[in-house]
Amino acid sequence: MLFEQIRNCVSAKTQITTFYDENTQSNHTVVFVQNTKEVQQVIQFANKERIPVVARGAQTGLVGATKLLQESIVLDFMQMNRILEWDIETFTLTVEPGVLLQDLQQYVEEKGYMYPPDPGDKTASIGGNISTNAGGMRAVKYGVTRDYVMGLEVVTGAGEILTLGGKCRKNSSGLDMKNLIIGSEGTLAVITQAVLKIIPKPIASFSVLVPFPDLKTGISTVLKIIQTNVKPTSIEFMERDIIQEAEQFLETKFPVQIGEAFILLTFDGSEISELKREAAQIEMVCHEHGALDYVYLTDPQVIQNVWTVRGALVTALEAHCELIPIDIVVPIHQTAELIQYTKILEKKFGVRIRSFGHAGDGNVHSCILRDALDDETWAKKSQTVLQALYEKSHALGGLPSGEHGIGIDKKPYFLAVTEPLQLAYMQKIKAVFDPNQILNPGKVYHHLNI
Amino acid sequence: MLFEQIRNCVSAKTQITTFYDENTQSNHTVVFVQNTKEVQQVIQFANKERIPVVARGAQTGLVGATKLLQESIVLDFMQMNRILEWDIETFTLTVEPGVLLQDLQQYVEEKGYMYPPDPGDKTASIGGNISTNAGGMRAVKYGVTRDYVMGLEVVTGAGEILTLGGKCRKNSSGLDMKNLIIGSEGTLAVITQAVLKIIPKPIASFSVLVPFPDLKTGISTVLKIIQTNVKPTSIEFMERDIIQEAEQFLETKFPVQIGEAFILLTFDGSEISELKREAAQIEMVCHEHGALDYVYLTDPQVIQNVWTVRGALVTALEAHCELIPIDIVVPIHQTAELIQYTKILEKKFGVRIRSFGHAGDGNVHSCILRDALDDETWAKKSQTVLQALYEKSHALGGLPSGEHGIGIDKKPYFLAVTEPLQLAYMQKIKAVFDPNQILNPGKVYHHLNI
Repeated sequence: MLFEQIRNCVSAKTQITTFYDENTQSNHTVVFVQNTKEVQQVIQFANKERIPVVARGAQTGLVGATKLLQESIVLDFMQMNRILEWDIETFTLTVEPGVLLQDLQQYVEEKGYMYPPDPGDKTASIGGNISTNAGGMRAVKYGVTRDYVMGLEVVTGAGEILTLGGKCRKNSSGLDMKNLIIGSEGTLAVITQAVLKIIPKPIASFSVLVPFPDLKTGISTVLKIIQTNVKPTSIEFMERDIIQEAEQFLETKFPVQIGEAFILLTFDGSEISELKREAAQIEMVCHEHGALDYVYLTDPQVIQNVWTVRGALVTALEAHCELIPIDIVVPIHQTAELIQYTKILEKKFGVRIRSFGHAGDGNVHSCILRDALDDETWAKKSQTVLQALYEKSHALGGLPSGEHGIGIDKKPYFLAVTEPLQLAYMQKIKAVFDPNQILNPGKVYHHLNI
Repeated sequence: MLFEQIRNCVSAKTQITTFYDENTQSNHTVVFVQNTKEVQQVIQFANKERIPVVARGAQTGLVGATKLLQESIVLDFMQMNRILEWDIETFTLTVEPGVLLQDLQQYVEEKGYMYPPDPGDKTASIGGNISTNAGGMRAVKYGVTRDYVMGLEVVTGAGEILTLGGKCRKNSSGLDMKNLIIGSEGTLAVITQAVLKIIPKPIASFSVLVPFPDLKTGISTVLKIIQTNVKPTSIEFMERDIIQEAEQFLETKFPVQIGEAFILLTFDGSEISELKREAAQIEMVCHEHGALDYVYLTDPQVIQNVWTVRGALVTALEAHCELIPIDIVVPIHQTAELIQYTKILEKKFGVRIRSFGHAGDGNVHSCILRDALDDETWAKKSQTVLQALYEKSHALGGLPSGEHGIGIDKKPYFLAVTEPLQLAYMQKIKAVFDPNQILNPGKVYHHLNI
């Protein structure tokens, strides 16, 4: 019956499947939507019938934002994956939400341009990236996804199509609804098209690896680096212990074997000599503040090696045991304090926590490792540790998520550290866009009530 | 009676004045608020009594956003003008809204840092800059006010205090209400505090003046400039006719006397030799695309001269006659088309229109000159010309305002080119923040109805 009704909303060629799900003990209908009109018709139907609608892309999300909590219609956007327009005159690329980040990056790079946001998982869809305001390695210099979304076409929970922003580089014309949709994790509207900003591709780039005796020294040096006029593309930090896990996992050797903590810098720009000058300026800063070495990575094999290690940190840990990844963000000078606190928690609760992340913007990826803990102990310990971490980051002026979003996995912690008044405003804004609360109900700030 | 009631909302020391206004034929009460608590108490009172509240700063706005349309309480923020915190570790400056842009810029520059947004009028208050999402000369490289507001404290129309954002450099934690407030022109909430992002000050900078035979050639060269890897700080355009007015007004001589249109470039960075290399790269591009010359401005006196001319363009025109300034924004490649259209309108309606602006982001400042027209003819002609211009820009994919805002002066044109559905969403969002519609009623998208 429901299947037939949804069938009538879309083209006869559009694929629809249903499946039964043990968790919710209910049937879900997945529609592989083809265009905005279909999305609108399905949402209008769901809105009338008060059926939850969950939009999903490549399902690479880390916070369970597309998890189904009750009988739902799933809008699968993976077949809406066309690049609609490449407009070199305005430096914009107009895409459907199902385009994968890796395809998008390749497309523009082949033309000599760059889409700067660079979150870790390149198999993510751009719609998902926009919905979580994804960040990534290059955020220090270039900013995050939000900074590259010039326009959006969305369908609201009321089934209405809004075109927000566009190809203009400035806008002071009325309320900025575009930024409200970015990072809203499918709770206000569903993205059906995006106009993205592209920039010329940097011609030259290289990396530098800087070992420090300890993390605190490394992080405090990062603050000094940021105070220079030089803006590295990436400023990542890693500790010895997590690198060793990755070395074992990848059967490779990290090029620097001294030091307990490492800062990995990348520089990019239009002129190699200028980058070298910048790197030399930062070298002085590093040596002044306790760096043990300052290793230019020039051999392409070594560079790839280091970034492979950096990219494989979570995978290496996962190969060993179950883990919970977090992406707390704190004001940049509090990064070391937060990591220090994970070490206190390790001792206090007897769990291992491994941290790395974006030192240049205070975004810390800590992984809480299960190791050999049994189900009950793990559930209890991980929850206690998470709660302590989120409380600590809140006390440091931090936020639960810098780039992954809240979804369902982080929701309890997000609710615990967010003012009830703010949550009330978020609920009321949701009611504007989604009056019957059908879009991704129960996620982020939303109290499940349909 | 009203005076006494407002008196009870604030400290005995807080200055309150009333004045009668011919236009609205009503009495207005001006409260020179001292702190957030007072702002909240006045708004709570006004909300209960359904009295309009208009927040104002330095009153440098260009679109009548703080004009009083009916009996109102004016919250004057000029005495809330303290710099509250300079936090070098997070590169943030926390300020009250009444701090003037020039004071803020001076404060950070003396410490070796820079607040990049640089709108023309330095006597504006930062609260006003945030409320209009002000842009300015340096937007090509550095972005606009929105890009430098990390946190806000606001009081909503319901009299509730919200603290949005803060000192974290990334945020994917719930709905982004901060960006909704930025550029909302006092219609949702009143800003009582702002956390601003500061960057290290560029050490070196210089300007280049490039004459072209005509504007079209100049603008199409700008598109080529943007396609290089070089990012100038400013890319301004001016035409011969408007420069001549400024030359006469200032009794000065523009350093380049050939060419009908000019592109004025600025470069800034950490190393003069690198900037020269960049400027040389752009010189090649300019010569390839029809530039008549490429004049490095190195003499400080000449540089100041040119920027004084650039800064005095509107004043020079105003000295001559009444004018209406606009700040339409179009996709960058449509800039020349829009200016071309002003010339068609000049001929068709027998009015003078002088244009200049930010070529690097498609933000065109056209001034419609009254010259000797009588009241009735001026009212009729200017309205017809404005309507034609806004319609044209809409057809080109443009927007009514790139940086000035909509206020009341541009509202009819904004309403004419904005989808009714979008306006309906804006109204509903207003109702969330300002349920009794007391904040700046009748402005931007809001239908006056209290």
